Amino acid sequence: MEPLLTAAAAAGETVSSHRHGASPIETDAVIVGAGPVGLFQVFELGLLEIKAHVVDALAYPGGQCAELYPDKPIYDIPAVPVCTGRELTERLLQQIEPFGAQFHYGQEVSGVQRRDDGRFDVETSKGLHFITKTLFIAAGVGAFQPRALKVEGLDVYAERQLFYRVRNPAEFAGKQLVIVGGGDSALDWALHFAQHTAHKAASVVLIHRRDGFRAAPASVARMRALCEAHEMQFLVGQPTGIEESNGRLTGLKVTGADAVTRVVPLDALLVFFGLSPKLGPIADWGLALERRQVVVDTEKFETSIPGIFAVGDINTYPGKKKLILSGFHEAALAAFGAAPRVFPDRHIQLQYTTTSPKLHKMLGVETPVFDE
Amino acid sequence: MEPLLTAAAAAGETVSSHRHGASPIETDAVIVGAGPVGLFQVFELGLLEIKAHVVDALAYPGGQCAELYPDKPIYDIPAVPVCTGRELTERLLQQIEPFGAQFHYGQEVSGVQRRDDGRFDVETSKGLHFITKTLFIAAGVGAFQPRALKVEGLDVYAERQLFYRVRNPAEFAGKQLVIVGGGDSALDWALHFAQHTAHKAASVVLIHRRDGFRAAPASVARMRALCEAHEMQFLVGQPTGIEESNGRLTGLKVTGADAVTRVVPLDALLVFFGLSPKLGPIADWGLALERRQVVVDTEKFETSIPGIFAVGDINTYPGKKKLILSGFHEAALAAFGAAPRVFPDRHIQLQYTTTSPKLHKMLGVETPVFDE
Repeated sequence: MEPLLTAAAAAGETVSSHRHGASPIETDAVIVGAGPVGLFQVFELGLLEIKAHVVDALAYPGGQCAELYPDKPIYDIPAVPVCTGRELTERLLQQIEPFGAQFHYGQEVSGVQRRDDGRFDVETSKGLHFITKTLFIAAGVGAFQPRALKVEGLDVYAERQLFYRVRNPAEFAGKQLVIVGGGDSALDWALHFAQHTAHKAASVVLIHRRDGFRAAPASVARMRALCEAHEMQFLVGQPTGIEESNGRLTGLKVTGADAVTRVVPLDALLVFFGLSPKLGPIADWGLALERRQVVVDTEKFETSIPGIFAVGDINTYPGKKKLILSGFHEAALAAFGAAPRVFPDRHIQLQYTTTSPKLHKMLGVETPVFDE
Repeated sequence: MEPLLTAAAAAGETVSSHRHGASPIETDAVIVGAGPVGLFQVFELGLLEIKAHVVDALAYPGGQCAELYPDKPIYDIPAVPVCTGRELTERLLQQIEPFGAQFHYGQEVSGVQRRDDGRFDVETSKGLHFITKTLFIAAGVGAFQPRALKVEGLDVYAERQLFYRVRNPAEFAGKQLVIVGGGDSALDWALHFAQHTAHKAASVVLIHRRDGFRAAPASVARMRALCEAHEMQFLVGQPTGIEESNGRLTGLKVTGADAVTRVVPLDALLVFFGLSPKLGPIADWGLALERRQVVVDTEKFETSIPGIFAVGDINTYPGKKKLILSGFHEAALAAFGAAPRVFPDRHIQLQYTTTSPKLHKMLGVETPVFDE
């Protein structure tokens, strides 16, 4: 099941569809990254009638703005004296809504291949296959990946007994669960498995390195109440080792503030340390890189591979500053750079949103009538 | 008397001061143009602690946005789904308010000279003299000048009997006035001189090429009522010649739709055809130009004269699109390009408005406290 969202749907409803093994999606443009620059790329392409699909590793739009500073104010977006990362994302989603781009969340672009017809085959980690005339990398600092718990010998249990996200909560019902972390994800899942009628675990032990939480105060209060009622346990400490038996993980060694190490028995270990960005497969596409940034020109923001453009924090050129507003400009020029490839027979002209009746129609607004 | 405005004062009060013959103003930066890009240049310089003075030929901020489309919606400012030219100007004035730039309206930069100390002497048409380390040309399509009435022999009466703006209305009291134009300025002044107790003219004849107006309908209705009451006259026609006597302009020849030419006697001729932009003296500063655009690099947006930068619609480089958002990006990179010239001993670092306590202090906002 793939999440397949339109910009309008991104806020609420999710339109799902089976794509595995489905026929490829033919499109003008694929945008890698649904951060602010990727979103504005939809807008600039849309003004030139270029249809786009957007792929993002996260489950929602906004990129760094949503992941790293959803509630922190930003002051340097031109003509927006102040807004949070979340507000910036919402404003951009509203702005691009007329162009009906399709969003594919929770997956990375895993492979890119030039086709004989000059287009690109683009595949995602969830098996989507696009055939696209152009590709826009707006991947910021890279795809956000769960931060790993680093304990010797633990890695091999990934997706068997060690999990960084919960795909199917029912799997964990009736088990001895150890949950590590101090943020909302850790607390929310701990409360879920301690309380949920159908998913209730045999036991829930929450482990955090200190007795203080990033999570919402209400969740913390609820967790403490459940501990009082012996419905779950909370332990302050650092995971320092594991216990195994017959190729199975049986316990987590946790060293407390008192320097005593205890073994907490478990069937499954859930770790929620937040996300950190990784350049990921983009590094292997054969693009010219400089210090892990994609090299582009400043006319079209095109990479060393014609037809692939890179905009925003992921690119580099003389004078480059990692500013959101620079990404916006780059997205505009990249759209114009890409247009001749999408419409080889068309004369591409800059039209202004203030005066062009054609753009007004696309934006779904009325053209104002002015006397002479 | 010079208008000397701060961003805060621009909306309302005007701080006036005599500058003729005063000592030069020493500053880090002079910005030519108070359009959206010139205003945002104040912001980007301000973040780097570079103080700026802004000069504009118009009497108010906003440039083309204020002059050409104050009430028309703009849709392509990133994260601002829709705003008018006036609103964009207001948002930018609000955003740059913390930086206390000084605005000098109603004058052009008439001369620029490199000094022996590496700075620039900058003079305006109203006699202001700046000594500045850097200069930013954000002049858009050029300085807005009143559009002239082209009738042979008329030019010599400029500022004697021919006027494109009214500086002192009392001068026109008791005179035979001919007013040409169909916009708000033409109508407003016609109504003023036909009705105002102290400024009432001996006669007011309004001339417009057709019986239809750009001006506010209420003004047009009022004008027609005054014509009915014989308080003024309206004539449809084109000015085609003049009558003179003893070196004075005595009449305007007006050819009507009926091809008949009448002579309208006058003491003073007021023409309101709107404003049109002219590159003006900038063409003579010795900057490399290409099709009347200032050539810049794409790293610092610096012109062929080091220390002089050009941003927004007036510059050109490969890929250039005349988009406001491109001007914003250019202003950011130009500020970083200029900083080493303003602070030769300082290491210039990109700081983010979201996270930098130093920038928060400059912006006059509190640094939020986040748990871990």
